[in-house]
Amino acid sequence: MNADEFRRRGKEMVDYVADYLEGIEARQVYPDVEPGYLRPLIPPTAPQEPDTFEDIINDVEKIIMPGVTHWHSPYFFAYFPTASSYPAMLADMLCGAIGCIGFSWAASPACTELETVMMDWLGRMLQLPEAFLAGEAGEGGGVIQGSASEATLVALLAARTKVIRCLQTASPGLTQAAVMEKLVAYASDQAHSSVERAGLIGGVKLKAIPSDGKFALRASALQEALERDKAAGLIPFFVVATLGTTSCCSFDNLLEVGPVCRKEGVWLHVDAAYAGSAFICPEFRHLLDGVEFADSFNFNPHKWLLVNFDCSAMWVKKRTDLTGAFKLDPVYLKHSHQDSGLITDYRHWQLPLGRRFRSLKMWFVFRLYGVTGLQAYIRKHVQLSHEFESLVRQDPRFEICAEVTLGLVCFRLKGPNSQNEALLERINSARRIHLVPCRLRDQFVLRFAICSRTVESAHVRLAWEHIRGLAAELLGAEKE
Amino acid sequence: MNADEFRRRGKEMVDYVADYLEGIEARQVYPDVEPGYLRPLIPPTAPQEPDTFEDIINDVEKIIMPGVTHWHSPYFFAYFPTASSYPAMLADMLCGAIGCIGFSWAASPACTELETVMMDWLGRMLQLPEAFLAGEAGEGGGVIQGSASEATLVALLAARTKVIRCLQTASPGLTQAAVMEKLVAYASDQAHSSVERAGLIGGVKLKAIPSDGKFALRASALQEALERDKAAGLIPFFVVATLGTTSCCSFDNLLEVGPVCRKEGVWLHVDAAYAGSAFICPEFRHLLDGVEFADSFNFNPHKWLLVNFDCSAMWVKKRTDLTGAFKLDPVYLKHSHQDSGLITDYRHWQLPLGRRFRSLKMWFVFRLYGVTGLQAYIRKHVQLSHEFESLVRQDPRFEICAEVTLGLVCFRLKGPNSQNEALLERINSARRIHLVPCRLRDQFVLRFAICSRTVESAHVRLAWEHIRGLAAELLGAEKE
Repeated sequence: MNADEFRRRGKEMVDYVADYLEGIEARQVYPDVEPGYLRPLIPPTAPQEPDTFEDIINDVEKIIMPGVTHWHSPYFFAYFPTASSYPAMLADMLCGAIGCIGFSWAASPACTELETVMMDWLGRMLQLPEAFLAGEAGEGGGVIQGSASEATLVALLAARTKVIRCLQTASPGLTQAAVMEKLVAYASDQAHSSVERAGLIGGVKLKAIPSDGKFALRASALQEALERDKAAGLIPFFVVATLGTTSCCSFDNLLEVGPVCRKEGVWLHVDAAYAGSAFICPEFRHLLDGVEFADSFNFNPHKWLLVNFDCSAMWVKKRTDLTGAFKLDPVYLKHSHQDSGLITDYRHWQLPLGRRFRSLKMWFVFRLYGVTGLQAYIRKHVQLSHEFESLVRQDPRFEICAEVTLGLVCFRLKGPNSQNEALLERINSARRIHLVPCRLRDQFVLRFAICSRTVESAHVRLAWEHIRGLAAELLGAEKE
Repeated sequence: MNADEFRRRGKEMVDYVADYLEGIEARQVYPDVEPGYLRPLIPPTAPQEPDTFEDIINDVEKIIMPGVTHWHSPYFFAYFPTASSYPAMLADMLCGAIGCIGFSWAASPACTELETVMMDWLGRMLQLPEAFLAGEAGEGGGVIQGSASEATLVALLAARTKVIRCLQTASPGLTQAAVMEKLVAYASDQAHSSVERAGLIGGVKLKAIPSDGKFALRASALQEALERDKAAGLIPFFVVATLGTTSCCSFDNLLEVGPVCRKEGVWLHVDAAYAGSAFICPEFRHLLDGVEFADSFNFNPHKWLLVNFDCSAMWVKKRTDLTGAFKLDPVYLKHSHQDSGLITDYRHWQLPLGRRFRSLKMWFVFRLYGVTGLQAYIRKHVQLSHEFESLVRQDPRFEICAEVTLGLVCFRLKGPNSQNEALLERINSARRIHLVPCRLRDQFVLRFAICSRTVESAHVRLAWEHIRGLAAELLGAEKE
């Protein structure tokens, strides 16, 4: 395919993309296919000679679309949102064309420098403490990771390296293994599974601290765990506090947990993967209070800030904590500026070596929406979740299971778990909307997350009427 | 930005992309900017109200392009190639629009299933042993990772888990830390820095085995290290063999190393990040002989197979080795098919949770080029590197430093390292072409990698004339 052909096919694809997104409401949100549906539709080997573009684009509708879960349908209320916006898509086209791999400053200076500045822009939008920003000559700074899982793991590894070096300096004979055996990380019992995974990968114990009645991590429970473990000869070194948990969007009490971490000299990582985007609105910024106690902070603009996946924003107060954990300098990656102290080589901040020019997406989205536009978008989603909450509250057969703060409503029938499982089964089998459940304590709970960029009040009301109808059917069938 | 505006701006962007790539030869391959150039060109905060699209696209030329290293310029001969093709860019547009996050089968069945089938297609193109393919009901299979670094780390972690579980089954009282303290991984002294990093992250020792005169890992050196370490009470568990090293594209001797690993019960991971793409050509397939001894194999179609970054292809013979190391199942990610044995939840195969619909890029590229087209592309690059090699060999002032097998030529002036460092400095300062160096034993060596999709014999000859001219200047200046 040459440039002329690309000009033609590219423009057709732009129209296909616009048609898809404009017409997405008419597509069934969750597919009907069974496992293994696709293999029989495709040849067992790649073609020897080229197919035509028409063949492929026809196959997209015939083979791919029937198996797609449409995350951007206004009837998709599952998981958490994943961002989708036209400005981000335009930036991604440019990113693909430039196609640089920005592992070092020299590998493409614009790629590194725009990222540093965009992370400062975003940090200022959130009113992050100045210590997290790169600025002209700060010790902190931001980096785009691929996912919150990677950010948590990177923070844990940096904390692990720091505590091992610190203890080895104090007792030079100490082996790494002897320290690692005693290291303990902590998170609440509501933390995301990726935190447990980070512990597994890092080869350290990860303890789940019981959350309180509002599913929040509190100082007392953390302090108790720390005391018990220290008394047992263990070494607490890392705490993950979550702002906006996946199950029910609860918030760990950062103003309590932060001082405990500081007093104990334990690395505090704050994971606000979903909720973080809301902190650009002054009325939600208080949810971030206490971040000044953190060593690292992360949230995903690729969830709720209109920057298409992947774009997970991570800041640290001391960039040397990250680079100290990962820095290796083979000759083929050396360049003349690297020891000048003036530049950032992001390969030392992350797990992979390669990285795309992802800050272009941030730049396009922030400029084409403006802060005001982004705030309006967040506010609309929060307003829609409150609308759904009030509809649920008006129906005495249902209950709300956790405080609704942002765009997630946890609700259930006031009945046994089996009834709620049956309701969810009916909802997802009907295929008109898509939800996923969670477990809160011993309760099976339905999660209604405001997800799509184009979801409106009418969709939310329709979804609720649909759920009520299925509930009535279910309860009627049970009575018979 | 609504759909209509996107239709207009998207088509403008398609033209911008085509213009950029068609005109890239006229741009200076390496930028003139100094560290910190970008910050003063951009406001310190995001705009409150939206900017216009014209503002942004103008700023792309004014602010971004002056700081871009043009990886797709035909004068870019640095590092290794990173893929760029129009079909991949079209697929990426579609991937962005669908915007699903394919962490589980249910999250978007097409995303998971196309990936499994495309990895089988690619495996068959390479004539990988059947054990690595998913097929209808195989125990193996492929997964797209973000980078070779992640693939190596994932393999190391899977091997670590396997050996720990195995030893704990034999001696139930054994702690994880007691095992980890004794674990040793191995790679040749030519292996990529990401292997050392994987050891660091995984918290295990990584030993570099001296390579032979052709920079290859041989059985004798490996066996010697294993014996020595076992005698010292250590536990060898993981070997990385490299096919196509970063410094000089040397090949570890897989037919020797493989049987040693099998005999010793050690996990063998084969990293062919760059070279792997060449194995689709029958005449290069012998370089992969011995892969039948491996537990996992990885290469990067995003380097040399025209599938834009990121797309790192990894296969394992036993998928349960990966999923066993990573599997955690929170309720919000459960779905009805997951325990059926019929489906793949790729989140258990990788470090992050989220993942894009990257197999679309493979599908578009494989179909629009055909295997024949892809083979022709590889062959052209190999032919160009041999052309450069023969030019170098005709000049008695220069020497070739390592066997030229694929698209990389390592060469230097027959003089001291300082002379070669000075030559590279002149080359990169002149900005007409871009190279990076490597170190082979004690020698400072220049690497000439055939990178761009559009590089032709004329560019290679021009580059060589330019290098010769600068060398003559340098040698002349030294004489004076």
